[in-house]
Amino acid sequence: MERYNYGMIGLGVMGRNLLYNIADNGFSVAGFDLDEEKIKELESGATSNMTVKGTGSLEEFVSQLEIPRKIILMVPAGKPVDAVLDNITPLLSKGDIVIDAGNSYFKDTDRRIADLASKNLHFMGMGVSGGEKGARKGPSIMPGGDLEAFKLIKPMLESIAAKVDNEACTAYMGKDSAGNYVKMVHNGIEYAIMQLISEAYDLLKRGANLSNDQLYKVFKEWNDGEMNSFLIEITRDIFQQKDPLKDGYLVDHILDKAGAKGTGKWTSEQAMEIGVSIPTIDIAVTSRILSAYKEERVQASQLYSEKEMINPENIDLFIKEVGDALYLATLISYAQGLALLVKASEEYNFEIPVRDVVKIWRGGCIIRSVLLEKFYSAYTNNPNLPNILLDKDISIIVKEKIKSLRNVAGFAASNGISSLGIQTALGYFDAYTTESLPVNLIQAQRDYFGAHTYQRIDREGVFHTSWQSVNN
Amino acid sequence: MERYNYGMIGLGVMGRNLLYNIADNGFSVAGFDLDEEKIKELESGATSNMTVKGTGSLEEFVSQLEIPRKIILMVPAGKPVDAVLDNITPLLSKGDIVIDAGNSYFKDTDRRIADLASKNLHFMGMGVSGGEKGARKGPSIMPGGDLEAFKLIKPMLESIAAKVDNEACTAYMGKDSAGNYVKMVHNGIEYAIMQLISEAYDLLKRGANLSNDQLYKVFKEWNDGEMNSFLIEITRDIFQQKDPLKDGYLVDHILDKAGAKGTGKWTSEQAMEIGVSIPTIDIAVTSRILSAYKEERVQASQLYSEKEMINPENIDLFIKEVGDALYLATLISYAQGLALLVKASEEYNFEIPVRDVVKIWRGGCIIRSVLLEKFYSAYTNNPNLPNILLDKDISIIVKEKIKSLRNVAGFAASNGISSLGIQTALGYFDAYTTESLPVNLIQAQRDYFGAHTYQRIDREGVFHTSWQSVNN
Repeated sequence: MERYNYGMIGLGVMGRNLLYNIADNGFSVAGFDLDEEKIKELESGATSNMTVKGTGSLEEFVSQLEIPRKIILMVPAGKPVDAVLDNITPLLSKGDIVIDAGNSYFKDTDRRIADLASKNLHFMGMGVSGGEKGARKGPSIMPGGDLEAFKLIKPMLESIAAKVDNEACTAYMGKDSAGNYVKMVHNGIEYAIMQLISEAYDLLKRGANLSNDQLYKVFKEWNDGEMNSFLIEITRDIFQQKDPLKDGYLVDHILDKAGAKGTGKWTSEQAMEIGVSIPTIDIAVTSRILSAYKEERVQASQLYSEKEMINPENIDLFIKEVGDALYLATLISYAQGLALLVKASEEYNFEIPVRDVVKIWRGGCIIRSVLLEKFYSAYTNNPNLPNILLDKDISIIVKEKIKSLRNVAGFAASNGISSLGIQTALGYFDAYTTESLPVNLIQAQRDYFGAHTYQRIDREGVFHTSWQSVNN
Repeated sequence: MERYNYGMIGLGVMGRNLLYNIADNGFSVAGFDLDEEKIKELESGATSNMTVKGTGSLEEFVSQLEIPRKIILMVPAGKPVDAVLDNITPLLSKGDIVIDAGNSYFKDTDRRIADLASKNLHFMGMGVSGGEKGARKGPSIMPGGDLEAFKLIKPMLESIAAKVDNEACTAYMGKDSAGNYVKMVHNGIEYAIMQLISEAYDLLKRGANLSNDQLYKVFKEWNDGEMNSFLIEITRDIFQQKDPLKDGYLVDHILDKAGAKGTGKWTSEQAMEIGVSIPTIDIAVTSRILSAYKEERVQASQLYSEKEMINPENIDLFIKEVGDALYLATLISYAQGLALLVKASEEYNFEIPVRDVVKIWRGGCIIRSVLLEKFYSAYTNNPNLPNILLDKDISIIVKEKIKSLRNVAGFAASNGISSLGIQTALGYFDAYTTESLPVNLIQAQRDYFGAHTYQRIDREGVFHTSWQSVNN
């Protein structure tokens, strides 16, 4: 009987395409799904060079895999993963490897690692980014956890991952649930960049009356230069997509209520939990929430209808400044996310190699961008950099663009174009680069009303004062 | 044997002062603490009109209380509360009431309510705000949960609470853990207002070179007018407090690293959890976090040292605009917090009477302010207002001040004075009052790379498009 090299549980869009990618690279693969349609789709979509088998029987699926079994899960995070594990673990043998390739919450992964270890099974959390096309043609892959199991699947991961300069966009991300954690932060940064791009779009559209054709040209130019990235590239495309249902461009007929799958929210919650400031990611999460309050927004827009827009005098200069602001705010969003990874690595003892993280994000994933080359250089120079804003070469870029970020933030504020991402990126930069923040006053207030004590700038220790009321 | 009307467990600053307040109002009180010093302090600080007894024996404490026992806990949130409950519940009798007056997490309260109910005991979560002085002279009190138990303690609460227009600043806040929830949101708003005041201070100090004496005069003037509030009042005082350890004003010698007790963070997490946007509270939480990175900030300030400040031409006008911006951003922070209460009330079935919330916040608590009178009117006109920005009278105030908020946000952006609270208040307002946000683009991106689907503006349903790449 033939034994398949890899098994996949969950044959949705991502699972099926990842399996084809594995099969394309010479590994034989078996897929399991409860949905008969998906099994058919898997087998009919395979090309002649692939060895691909689908089944709806878990027993058959497990029995056909070579030992130690290497089973990838691509099912929705949360209860579905636990349900699959409950069903499959009794069928497995000592030393088998289960790899969760979904967006599982990292604490769930830690629990599952312990649970499967008690059954002599290996469990790994592995982030995969790149969407449908990435899964098929080469995603960025973020495995973490069991080093012994990782070594067994490493050749396969390196063959299916995206390549940049002939190097595979996959690397070991650290211990325990580090793979899920890195993917979570990847998604948090993705939220921030998408928010920033939407603000640049709004500024150019409402602020400078650019048409979709003009927007296409602007984003094309940006993508052809230093702002080259996956998200800028697809935004360029979006402005040329005709609506299949009526005249005009599709983007103009899409409802402005954003969905979210939770990884952005987890990133914000985690940052608060372990004490890292990532305001541009936070604001991206809360902006999606706010977008859902469409009915209230319509009502409020009628009550506050007197906004007047003063268009920029020099449109070309404005477009350039918006581009620079987007570039710099994007850089600052990466800075926030990467600072979170540095702190999380300490906090949870993950030993995340941040240099490898930015290296493998250069290709395949949703936040790939030429900017990551610069971060890769920065971490190569100093692997322990707490924040990329502290890198000298990065600081040169920042200084070139900061004036534009200030001007665009000012334009947005005076013209009533909400630009929370741009504003928080600037506010974060200004706070992070300020030696003395006005937080001394907050400490005074806290000590005044709650006797919470304060520290001093001129001596060690903790102090409390009986603050005197002046007028009462 | 004399039986005491009320018992207090935890004789720290808040517990002791609250107990004196109860005793001042004619109730006999017993206090328990493991710390002998605190028992002595309780008894020695009592005045002759009070019946106050302290003890270090839990058995003695419990046996001396009238039936049904009414025991208030004022111990740190978390494990200490559970430890006290474990020790005390075996000593109690059916129908006794335990009232947790600390800042407990609302989900812990729900768990404890169920736990004590299974032992035929009443458990209530009750928010108390006002700091040390408030506890002693009249706090704002936010009880929730067991209605039967509430009725028994209501007369006492009304006698010890702050009074506004002869009405007590206490009311039933809703079912289950509603009392803790309302207090949590109170604290979230408190974080936001403190952040905003610190930004106004920074703008006036670094932006316009105001001295502490000048700042005192500005805050005095603000407090004497429409901005009258507890936090503005104590800020006024702070600028006149001399340093007891060296020449000069104390505020200038306090370290700019803020502490936090967690309620702000809980508020932000809750808002993300149930889908409410409160960016100015979020930013206040994250700004305190950022302040702790002092060493990195010092390093970054040296790398990015070229900021130049262009002081405002007309200082008096600038001060007025900063005041208006602070006033309006404060109003918008209340709007965010109150919108969270409205949603939480639905989500958790609390039945929070938001009109009563703003009514009892008018006095005693840290966020008391004359602004709350306006909110009280707004909710009196429409108890189901989803957001106070939708109230007509409030909209008139907003329109008067919005220009100043824009100008100050622009000044901060161009001069490098981080003003995340002011920026997010403005950004929230601008997003909330915009009918069509650029979120259509985010939905297009999500559908492009992840097939996450989108809705349309012109027809019902959920759609997916195979987006076409233009150049590749």
